[in-house]
Amino acid sequence: MLVNGARGNLISIRDRGLLYGDGVFRTFTAIGGHASHWPLHYLKLKHDCAALRIACPEVALLTTELRELLASHPDGVFKLMVTRGIGQRGYTPPTSSQTTHLWDISSLPADLPEWAIHGVKVRVCDLRLSTQPQLAGIKHLNRLENVLAAGESTDADIAEGLLCDAAGNMIGGVRSNLFLVIRGVLVTPDLARCGVAGVQRDRVMAWAKARGFAVQVRDITLDECSNADEVFLTNSVFGLWPIRELGENSWHQFPLASQIRLDLQGDQS
Amino acid sequence: MLVNGARGNLISIRDRGLLYGDGVFRTFTAIGGHASHWPLHYLKLKHDCAALRIACPEVALLTTELRELLASHPDGVFKLMVTRGIGQRGYTPPTSSQTTHLWDISSLPADLPEWAIHGVKVRVCDLRLSTQPQLAGIKHLNRLENVLAAGESTDADIAEGLLCDAAGNMIGGVRSNLFLVIRGVLVTPDLARCGVAGVQRDRVMAWAKARGFAVQVRDITLDECSNADEVFLTNSVFGLWPIRELGENSWHQFPLASQIRLDLQGDQS
Repeated sequence: MLVNGARGNLISIRDRGLLYGDGVFRTFTAIGGHASHWPLHYLKLKHDCAALRIACPEVALLTTELRELLASHPDGVFKLMVTRGIGQRGYTPPTSSQTTHLWDISSLPADLPEWAIHGVKVRVCDLRLSTQPQLAGIKHLNRLENVLAAGESTDADIAEGLLCDAAGNMIGGVRSNLFLVIRGVLVTPDLARCGVAGVQRDRVMAWAKARGFAVQVRDITLDECSNADEVFLTNSVFGLWPIRELGENSWHQFPLASQIRLDLQGDQS
Repeated sequence: MLVNGARGNLISIRDRGLLYGDGVFRTFTAIGGHASHWPLHYLKLKHDCAALRIACPEVALLTTELRELLASHPDGVFKLMVTRGIGQRGYTPPTSSQTTHLWDISSLPADLPEWAIHGVKVRVCDLRLSTQPQLAGIKHLNRLENVLAAGESTDADIAEGLLCDAAGNMIGGVRSNLFLVIRGVLVTPDLARCGVAGVQRDRVMAWAKARGFAVQVRDITLDECSNADEVFLTNSVFGLWPIRELGENSWHQFPLASQIRLDLQGDQS
């Protein structure tokens, strides 16, 4: 645990990250002292900071801190947060605040291997995501919609909830991105109005591009999702989960999803 | 500054208030050792906690802490925050977390008397509020929309920004509620889809009810706002500000707004 470079697990109650959710974060895994896709995570962090006009710490600083943490915590889930720091009272962003950056580490989750291979059961959440083009795609700290959606079900068999917007477009999972395979084409939701664009989503799209697979980024209905040849979820902690059950629909084979999963696992740069 | 009843100004980096904005808050003033409308603020806090299924601390506990703070800080802006506390990693709300509650105190702002009497200049923000019925009205910690809207203008003459939703309905100010006077009727935005329902808004409505004034809670267009006989803003720190300038429209007299302001000021229970 590092807060602005110093060992510690506390933050000021005047930090705008707490007051307003005025910040962004990344979550990724480390295994055997190697942090998965750190360069991609840093790029995304920088992009998200820029979208909120928060000054992102330099890559050299964060990489040094990450190395220090990996030396004592070679395996775990790493969370990196950057907030706009402490300002005067009120919503107006301070013109010259010192941003806050902090690291937290948790143990790796236990349930992954089986779900990744045999697929997961998912449900559609009741909550409908709101539409805010200025925040869409960004992994910011305003996550109450995800909290409410995650709290809808306590069924331990359900690995993830799927989220739609008010118009009924599928946007993704509560903590993951969504892909469909329809006649050999990869289809993933357009995240211009809501949702979070994750690093694993980018990696799947890069995978497809490198292999000549077509990718469509567009609006998707629940019906299309239910009738797709394969459906899968991605995030930076669990990697890739095929969906085996959604409502009355079930899938038993995931040839393309499995291939992508293995290829992405093989590239841990 | 009290955090869970103890002197301090720090909070865990694992608190869900920071991680997800998973909490609610109140802001109000104290003058001469008296906190304005504390019972109303507690009721609203309890209501907002219930809406997010967060266990609200008991009124006796919070009142005791408030009295302790007032003894050493008789004048100031008091902020009270309640979060869902610390849970396991992930969005899912823990079934039995200890909520966090904390107090912060700032000095009273300086610019109020003139603006309250002669009115303020406001602008319409570019940002359009998103629509989320499950969070509408609640003063929760997901306030990035307010931050972005407040950051749109650095013009010190502009006291407040007005916010619309994507359909063009006026919702309120960045940190205030909005009222129109149209032929003797008070009109205020419907906050069922977005916005924050403040304690001062309730007080204005109670004032109107007690005096037989009609109040309409409904959708309002910018046009109606611009053509209203009077327009005013309310919040628990500045009380009531009439609007004197909005785009090309200006107002020079605010008979009803001034009467309401004086009556509300006179009742500091």
